Amino acid sequence: MSYCVALKLSRGLIFMSDTLTNGGLDNISSYPKTFSWGIPGNRQILLTTAGNLATSQAVIKTLSEQIKDKNNGSQSILTAPTMFQVARIVSQTLAEVIDVSSKWHQKAENKFSANFILGGQINNNEMALYLIYPEGNFIEVSHKKPFFQIGETKYGRPILVRAFESEMSFEDAIRLLMVSFDSTIKANLSVGLPLDLFVYINNSLSEAKTHKITEDNEYFRMVSREWADSLKKSLAALPKFEFNN
Amino acid sequence: MSYCVALKLSRGLIFMSDTLTNGGLDNISSYPKTFSWGIPGNRQILLTTAGNLATSQAVIKTLSEQIKDKNNGSQSILTAPTMFQVARIVSQTLAEVIDVSSKWHQKAENKFSANFILGGQINNNEMALYLIYPEGNFIEVSHKKPFFQIGETKYGRPILVRAFESEMSFEDAIRLLMVSFDSTIKANLSVGLPLDLFVYINNSLSEAKTHKITEDNEYFRMVSREWADSLKKSLAALPKFEFNN
Repeated sequence: MSYCVALKLSRGLIFMSDTLTNGGLDNISSYPKTFSWGIPGNRQILLTTAGNLATSQAVIKTLSEQIKDKNNGSQSILTAPTMFQVARIVSQTLAEVIDVSSKWHQKAENKFSANFILGGQINNNEMALYLIYPEGNFIEVSHKKPFFQIGETKYGRPILVRAFESEMSFEDAIRLLMVSFDSTIKANLSVGLPLDLFVYINNSLSEAKTHKITEDNEYFRMVSREWADSLKKSLAALPKFEFNN
Repeated sequence: MSYCVALKLSRGLIFMSDTLTNGGLDNISSYPKTFSWGIPGNRQILLTTAGNLATSQAVIKTLSEQIKDKNNGSQSILTAPTMFQVARIVSQTLAEVIDVSSKWHQKAENKFSANFILGGQINNNEMALYLIYPEGNFIEVSHKKPFFQIGETKYGRPILVRAFESEMSFEDAIRLLMVSFDSTIKANLSVGLPLDLFVYINNSLSEAKTHKITEDNEYFRMVSREWADSLKKSLAALPKFEFNN
């Protein structure tokens, strides 16, 4: 499994993903799960993925080839006029890849399924964030809680539900994500460091800042340690249960 | 879905379960999911369940009928000599119920699957806690982290993994469970109040104390409120992320 989160802040977009992949417990390796494309001054696109690795890689590769293939006349994610059209290209590519894998009579034990979160901005349009389903359709993020999670979403969800606000600073939002990832990593072996972080600044139309959080990242270790301490203290500070409650 | 947790403390057993069941979003009601049987001075047995309601009810009903049917010669959970034998009776009953439901050609959209957690004590034997799978087999709880969860387990797991210790007092453990349930209820619509709480005191061989935590339970509301506050404060007290980290 994977764990990927994308936040839509008023200041910009933040994508964070783990890099662990496994085809069985004896076949573990590290792959990036978040990808970016852009034309400075025109558009920036971020895409993160959870699910079947072969499917994800085929989708990413196909999108990249569409960009290079300037003669075929059909649009790529770098020529589509709106983020909605970009989402259609990604979702159709995903549905096609799954369709091709599924048509053979050999059935895989795991499905060929994958989910994507797509974010980005084109020209002076509003930033967009979409969740793309393996069926080839997609939804836009809600205004109230503008974030999406894919993969092992549940462990790290309660803290996001409680604390995420779209007016947060990048620094506060990244700190919140660190806690959400730390809770997930502590509870589930299939999500692991390093983490990839992408930060796109609203209206900049310039490349997202990237950052890799590895096992020896002092900040992550400190957050993990202090969060554990402070949860225990918070728990101890709650009023005692008494049986006559 | 459901959320049920059973803790094995050195002081005794604690079971907590929600009571919400749903067959679709327009068919929601409240059923108990934790059941107890016992013979004071001889044994006490607790059973909690998550999954298909028809399957759970059939298992509970069958176990109760086996107890009443004293002429049939086979053992019931109140006559089996050890908790291991009790676990075998429960797991066989479960597997049989699922088998009977599955043999018809009509297939249900949802599987007939259910999980159980069984806990209890017989005579002066050690208390036992088992997780029973729909396949009809079961495992005993680990010594290191002696608790089981079934149903919507992931949202409430990180705090249990971090804070649960088998030497806790009942009061501390119940407080921890309240937090774990609160996180789950906040993140997932299919888990809801009231909660049922059962506390069995080690070596007492007397009935578990029970307690119902309803929507207007002042303690639960206070824990929920204070926990939310204190998470936000803890988050704000963590060191700031800086981009040069």
